[in-house]
Amino acid sequence: MTIQALGERIATVNDILCSLGVLVWDSRTMMPSGGAVSRGFQIATLTRTARDLLASDDTLRLVESAEREAAKLPADALDREAVRQVREAVEAHRRVPGDVIERRAAVRARANAAWIEARARDDFSTFRPYLQETVANTREYADALGWTGHRYDALLRLYEPGETLERLRRLFAELRAGLKPILAAARARPNGAGAILHRTFPVETQRDVALGLARTLGYDLSRGRLDGTVHPFEISFTREDVRITTRYNETFLRPALFGAMHETGHALYEQNVDPAFSRTVFATDLLGLYAVGGTSFGAHESQSRLWENHVGRSLAFWRLQFPALKERFPEALGDVTAERFYEAVTTVEPGLIRTDADELTYDFHIMLRVDIEAALIGGEMEVDDVPEAWRKAMKDGLGLDVPNDRLGCLQDIHWSSGMIGSFCTYTIGNVMAAQLFEAALASDDAIAAGLEKGDYAPLAGWLRENVWRHGRSRSREQILVAATGRGLETGPYLRYLAGKYGA
Amino acid sequence: MTIQALGERIATVNDILCSLGVLVWDSRTMMPSGGAVSRGFQIATLTRTARDLLASDDTLRLVESAEREAAKLPADALDREAVRQVREAVEAHRRVPGDVIERRAAVRARANAAWIEARARDDFSTFRPYLQETVANTREYADALGWTGHRYDALLRLYEPGETLERLRRLFAELRAGLKPILAAARARPNGAGAILHRTFPVETQRDVALGLARTLGYDLSRGRLDGTVHPFEISFTREDVRITTRYNETFLRPALFGAMHETGHALYEQNVDPAFSRTVFATDLLGLYAVGGTSFGAHESQSRLWENHVGRSLAFWRLQFPALKERFPEALGDVTAERFYEAVTTVEPGLIRTDADELTYDFHIMLRVDIEAALIGGEMEVDDVPEAWRKAMKDGLGLDVPNDRLGCLQDIHWSSGMIGSFCTYTIGNVMAAQLFEAALASDDAIAAGLEKGDYAPLAGWLRENVWRHGRSRSREQILVAATGRGLETGPYLRYLAGKYGA
Repeated sequence: MTIQALGERIATVNDILCSLGVLVWDSRTMMPSGGAVSRGFQIATLTRTARDLLASDDTLRLVESAEREAAKLPADALDREAVRQVREAVEAHRRVPGDVIERRAAVRARANAAWIEARARDDFSTFRPYLQETVANTREYADALGWTGHRYDALLRLYEPGETLERLRRLFAELRAGLKPILAAARARPNGAGAILHRTFPVETQRDVALGLARTLGYDLSRGRLDGTVHPFEISFTREDVRITTRYNETFLRPALFGAMHETGHALYEQNVDPAFSRTVFATDLLGLYAVGGTSFGAHESQSRLWENHVGRSLAFWRLQFPALKERFPEALGDVTAERFYEAVTTVEPGLIRTDADELTYDFHIMLRVDIEAALIGGEMEVDDVPEAWRKAMKDGLGLDVPNDRLGCLQDIHWSSGMIGSFCTYTIGNVMAAQLFEAALASDDAIAAGLEKGDYAPLAGWLRENVWRHGRSRSREQILVAATGRGLETGPYLRYLAGKYGA
Repeated sequence: MTIQALGERIATVNDILCSLGVLVWDSRTMMPSGGAVSRGFQIATLTRTARDLLASDDTLRLVESAEREAAKLPADALDREAVRQVREAVEAHRRVPGDVIERRAAVRARANAAWIEARARDDFSTFRPYLQETVANTREYADALGWTGHRYDALLRLYEPGETLERLRRLFAELRAGLKPILAAARARPNGAGAILHRTFPVETQRDVALGLARTLGYDLSRGRLDGTVHPFEISFTREDVRITTRYNETFLRPALFGAMHETGHALYEQNVDPAFSRTVFATDLLGLYAVGGTSFGAHESQSRLWENHVGRSLAFWRLQFPALKERFPEALGDVTAERFYEAVTTVEPGLIRTDADELTYDFHIMLRVDIEAALIGGEMEVDDVPEAWRKAMKDGLGLDVPNDRLGCLQDIHWSSGMIGSFCTYTIGNVMAAQLFEAALASDDAIAAGLEKGDYAPLAGWLRENVWRHGRSRSREQILVAATGRGLETGPYLRYLAGKYGA
């Protein structure tokens, strides 16, 4: 009875967080510019309402009573895990004082405005005091949440539960060692095909093609829609309404197509969570306060990267899809073959900007950021030292000189948005994608056969069974161990990259 | 201090209700079909959250304390009125038991589904039990809210505070008597121009034209947007984000243009409420639980009808706007003059469907419905008798035979949506529009001069000063008395119609 009552409480929280998602989606796609200030109030109010409901004495009493009931259930009962997750989130929220949260929101608003200005003027000193304030506030937030190994671990928990800085450092060491020779080999064979993607591609046609690719990969449009935005994203308001966006640039085809496939990967995860989990803790990030079915940011990224890179950035894929693409863009692609198009979308070229990075250099951008932000949070580096640390890491990692901070430490929105701790999930996603993809191919020959003939249902079926349907009822590591027999490991990822880009 | 704390509480309620508005707008314009069930949960949860917060003991204590503070303020202080309005809403919500509200929501969902089926099959008996349940539930809801004159008055208060059935009946008697000779005169001079509007008008161009008209009348697109929907509507999430929709039919031009002008009238009201009232009780319907700046449904409708009919359905307007319209639709309108187009949009033709009705017959549709629903709520009529009462009233009022219930008592969504009590506001809007328009023209010659040359700013300025800016800080009658020297009266409306359509 109390487990049920607690479930109703969580359903209410989920409804509020789904509503919050609608506000966010609308603000990025449909809202007139004048609505921004009011929308800020609305988003803050719904966030606070969800948090207060969750952290209330009344909810805590429900949890305590539900725990007594759950103790009588079998050890592997889902209800036990549900109550455990609610308890953990309720306690975490109750540990963070209201004034820390308010400061966090206030700092974020100021820091974001300062970052926009600093980036426009290429002036780190404009952003410096706000980054200092952000770091200070994030430290107090981490301390309130609690940690044992490194203060950064408290933040990792928000995005990648169970992850620690110590583990990440081991992962990064393996990646750095493994990636360098592959990168060197790839750079020794420049293909010069990238320019193909910079011809003229009418935006209306790009839209049709992007939607067609999403549908081809299995995106259910009766429970979704595709819009255009500057920064592509996926967002869900229960599994029954999962929306994606992509970016259209008339003289650069890659963002629209690969943005759509990337976000489709995220969307497939959300659309295929067990329907029984809708409006439960297994479809809600109670700690981060948003409605999501994926079990961690890294696990989510594994699905977007799997569909974008392992499926979409493959020769088999373009041998099948390129003829139709060529028909849609006869002028731009008339002289191009599927093989050449594949070369264009797998060009390797180290650069300064993370969001433009190819498969081989992307993780260097991530590792550099994680190292810096962990040191800031741990107090091992000062904000003043960030630009120089960035330059040094870029030189060491990719051999590039950073001419200014706009192309360096001012390029990302994350720090000004208080999202310290989230960067690692991009690399975790890359590593996990390869591990799952390798296991899927090994488990059933029909999956590889399907990819060769454009039937993506066998792969989707395997992912649905092993990843998607579980929602947040299993952790990332539980999913990996059950699906691949091992926890997160770099082997499959390095094998995949070596096979695709190596000597 | 407590007045301020109460204000913060109301700001939170307003934020939640604005968020609710976004959910509703999205569900009618953007949401994929699969999202409907989840969205229902989200809407129910935000409604309940706003209601519970408002009706809580804590809010009541804030009100009591704020009242003591307000008692020390001058009698005409806005804060006194604010606290009074909050007290009234809090008490009303606390009087309605939770199970009545839950039943109301449950009945509505069932009744709506039954109505859709009944209308499709033209079978009143399918809807009958649900209408009976709706009436029974609405009666208990009205009794919980409380009333003195007629039980229907409790429902009128939800849409048109201060209105009573007794006053409405006097208003209707005057209208019936005054409209009949004008209608007879108009019917004696059929102009046959209506067919012009049923030529072919490409939808894309209609969209441009509709947006152009909205802008011409003063709609601020930096704080709004226009979309297409089957049922046009206006909705606001604070005055800074006020959205409208209209309907596009390739072979009927009227809905797009007059729908856009009608909704623009609503939007002008919302966009021009005093900015100081944002997130206060003066921009929130705390009883009806939605975010709105207009003081009543009738007052709101007065603005939509004023711009749609007094401005948009005038010869002066089309003498100015028709040349551009003709340019946009050269094939359909090449042989048409501004005068002939004006005749087309002012054709009078009694019909069975309310939403298709012209200016002269519209109120008959309304009065018929109000009479029936008031009798149902008062217990003076049984649901079984509705179809026959409808036929009789249609014969008496407009001389028309009703061949079936689909064209009769099953045509409107209102009863199945639990909106009993709202119909009168359409006619109140018509009457009030004429009264305000007459007063505006009399107050300043620049207003009429502006209308003759396409400058709508003087009229908008008068309405902003006398109506819009006050938001919900003044009642409909207070606004009318201050602006026209009189309470709601039929004289100006009947004079306007006689001048436009009479002998």
